[in-house]
Amino acid sequence: MLYSGMNRSQLEAERNELQKEYDAISAKHLSLDLSRGKPGMTQLNMLTGMLDCISTAADVRSADGFDYRNYGLLDGVPEAKKMFSDLLGIPESMIIVAGNSSLNLMYDTLVRCMLYGTVGRDGKCVPWVKQDKIKFLCPVPGYDRHFGMTQSLGIEMINVPMHEDGPDMFMVEKLVSEDPSIKGIWCNPKYSNPDGVTYSDETVKRFAALKPAAQDFRIFWDNAYAVHGLFGKDVQLLDIFEECKKQGSEDMVFYFASTSKISFPGSGVAIFAASEHNLEQIKPILNTQTIGFDKINQIRHVRYFGSADGIRMHMKDLAGIIRPKFEIVLSTLENDLANTGIATWTKPRGGYFVSLFLMPGTARRTYDLCKSLGVTLTKAGATYPYGIDPDDSNIRIAPTYPSNADVESAMKVLTVCARIAALDKLLAAEKAQ
Amino acid sequence: MLYSGMNRSQLEAERNELQKEYDAISAKHLSLDLSRGKPGMTQLNMLTGMLDCISTAADVRSADGFDYRNYGLLDGVPEAKKMFSDLLGIPESMIIVAGNSSLNLMYDTLVRCMLYGTVGRDGKCVPWVKQDKIKFLCPVPGYDRHFGMTQSLGIEMINVPMHEDGPDMFMVEKLVSEDPSIKGIWCNPKYSNPDGVTYSDETVKRFAALKPAAQDFRIFWDNAYAVHGLFGKDVQLLDIFEECKKQGSEDMVFYFASTSKISFPGSGVAIFAASEHNLEQIKPILNTQTIGFDKINQIRHVRYFGSADGIRMHMKDLAGIIRPKFEIVLSTLENDLANTGIATWTKPRGGYFVSLFLMPGTARRTYDLCKSLGVTLTKAGATYPYGIDPDDSNIRIAPTYPSNADVESAMKVLTVCARIAALDKLLAAEKAQ
Repeated sequence: MLYSGMNRSQLEAERNELQKEYDAISAKHLSLDLSRGKPGMTQLNMLTGMLDCISTAADVRSADGFDYRNYGLLDGVPEAKKMFSDLLGIPESMIIVAGNSSLNLMYDTLVRCMLYGTVGRDGKCVPWVKQDKIKFLCPVPGYDRHFGMTQSLGIEMINVPMHEDGPDMFMVEKLVSEDPSIKGIWCNPKYSNPDGVTYSDETVKRFAALKPAAQDFRIFWDNAYAVHGLFGKDVQLLDIFEECKKQGSEDMVFYFASTSKISFPGSGVAIFAASEHNLEQIKPILNTQTIGFDKINQIRHVRYFGSADGIRMHMKDLAGIIRPKFEIVLSTLENDLANTGIATWTKPRGGYFVSLFLMPGTARRTYDLCKSLGVTLTKAGATYPYGIDPDDSNIRIAPTYPSNADVESAMKVLTVCARIAALDKLLAAEKAQ
Repeated sequence: MLYSGMNRSQLEAERNELQKEYDAISAKHLSLDLSRGKPGMTQLNMLTGMLDCISTAADVRSADGFDYRNYGLLDGVPEAKKMFSDLLGIPESMIIVAGNSSLNLMYDTLVRCMLYGTVGRDGKCVPWVKQDKIKFLCPVPGYDRHFGMTQSLGIEMINVPMHEDGPDMFMVEKLVSEDPSIKGIWCNPKYSNPDGVTYSDETVKRFAALKPAAQDFRIFWDNAYAVHGLFGKDVQLLDIFEECKKQGSEDMVFYFASTSKISFPGSGVAIFAASEHNLEQIKPILNTQTIGFDKINQIRHVRYFGSADGIRMHMKDLAGIIRPKFEIVLSTLENDLANTGIATWTKPRGGYFVSLFLMPGTARRTYDLCKSLGVTLTKAGATYPYGIDPDDSNIRIAPTYPSNADVESAMKVLTVCARIAALDKLLAAEKAQ
């Protein structure tokens, strides 16, 4: 029965029932973690062969004799460029294969804009630190670490609601065309964190067609889950660079990807892609910043996966491990919450997260209740700039790390706590009347 | 015979002799490279076992069960901290074991100072970008990539002469105590690039005792060649942090090191060390910047070398490969130039370079002549800020990469060209009189 349709005594009866469940769980002294998008042990063990897949000098040499053990090649080994070009559909000439963290690439990219500025239609733009105020659009809910970076650098963040087909493009179009202090937008265009939304073709086209007031406006296109489908046929994301080409807006996109959720997180390979015009400016700065990235790790990835198809096959195997966890999450939500009317949630076709929207004003309470039962969730609010969810409603569920049994236990705890939080709020409202 | 003691006809006779040598070399169509501090093939081949020295899940797990294949541990794996703490004599609590490039750490450190400022005696200092003008002291000759970074970030560079015991400390002391816009100094305190100088105990003590006008003055202590002795007993560098402790100036040092010339250049491990006061400020920013460094590569280094002593033994073996190259360099300079009086050079006990000082006004010409004979040197001027050697005298010799035979050929070319350049200059001066 819908909680909204219950009278006071019904609410109290339900609350009492749930208290019993709460107490029973409490007695179990659980210690479970649904908080971070971390691969689980089974996923990691699938990759053991990668550790020693290169062993001779020949393994770390290019076809034309370049020795990847030595200095050189700022923008990555050609074989890796080729593999990621095939995987992501981006020309090799636009790709830099980099170090172990795409987040680090994004941070460096922001820093470069701050200190050096970007290229513009009429030459070089003024560095962001020398401009008055800098703002970023942040589709919400979104990735806490994106928001953490812009906050750390003193960039003002503006919330933009996420819909089922991506960010609210009417709002994006209006804001970027009117306000030249808006310099960027965080995008997680496929299986987004945390909603699992893939931007529709129309959304991508509208991004490419943006007419920003700021010449140095950039779309931070973090395609972190490019090949991370879980159910059936992989959802297709329109090629942003192709669309930009049609609009003459290729300079507007900074593209990021990584193998953090393909190979080893923290020991993978990160990818940056941008127009040649952008790269002309960026490469010399990069050349000042570093002696180059870890080419041995890049060629290790090439030798292990063999090709883009090798990665795709590996992702199918990984999906087989992750899918059951998503099924547990979704079926528990369905069974325990669907008939209460207190929550909605996304049903992603891939990625690493499910986004749960609770009765407004109950997310933090739910987080605290779960914590008291030994279940750690992503902190309520974390999916919003400054850690402030204006509705106090969204919870990000990250089910990849725990075992299936633990996901099941943790989800049970979550639904019990969400219902308690909702009932307490409804009862408090009843009393206030 | 000293060129300075020759009369015109003697100079001309010598010049004619050398032209014959030049022509003979020219006929050989050489293609040799003494330009960069790159390990040679033999050095790299010694490390082949490192490529597959980890192969099981157990190899990438800490003693207490932490899985280095997954996310976590921002500041490096404890075993690696321990190993580098033992190697460098720095407490583990002051160390961050990072990615593959200490140069990148230096750049990031500069950027952090620019955008966030440093800690100060009275709290946080104003970010460098918000201060009027920022200057760095640059001991010369020095490392071109250090200078490239400060130049790229718009930091004004001031030359400080290098002596046999380190930078001119009278000048350093005077400048930093008088000018609050001087925020840093580049130091390469052991087997310096390119001179191979190790700072004397007194120099290190005077660094620790500096009383800078700027609270946010920092010594960028790039100890790149900490364990890179080549001849006999390793030269000892005084512990800068110990000396600073005595002076209460520990916050003044940003310390860098790496395995770039120990394991694989570009696929090694970089180390940052600083006072806990500095680290308190830095770690949260680092946590925003990256998801962490490549821990698998860190533990790979630990498993392969085993301990600090393992690294020291490896460095002895490497020295056996590099020492003969240095001997060829030094004996060729001695044989071909000592009696001409046109050059002086350093005789390093370790490191990667020999610094050659030619007759003022002849370094660029010598570089060009070598180039015309197929021998690439580090560009004349590169060892000075803005690429400008005010005396046009210094040439950095980097003999590690070529084979011994090639070092011999290239050095012969260098001395012939240096003599031609000197003779032409002397003859031109004769004519002008």
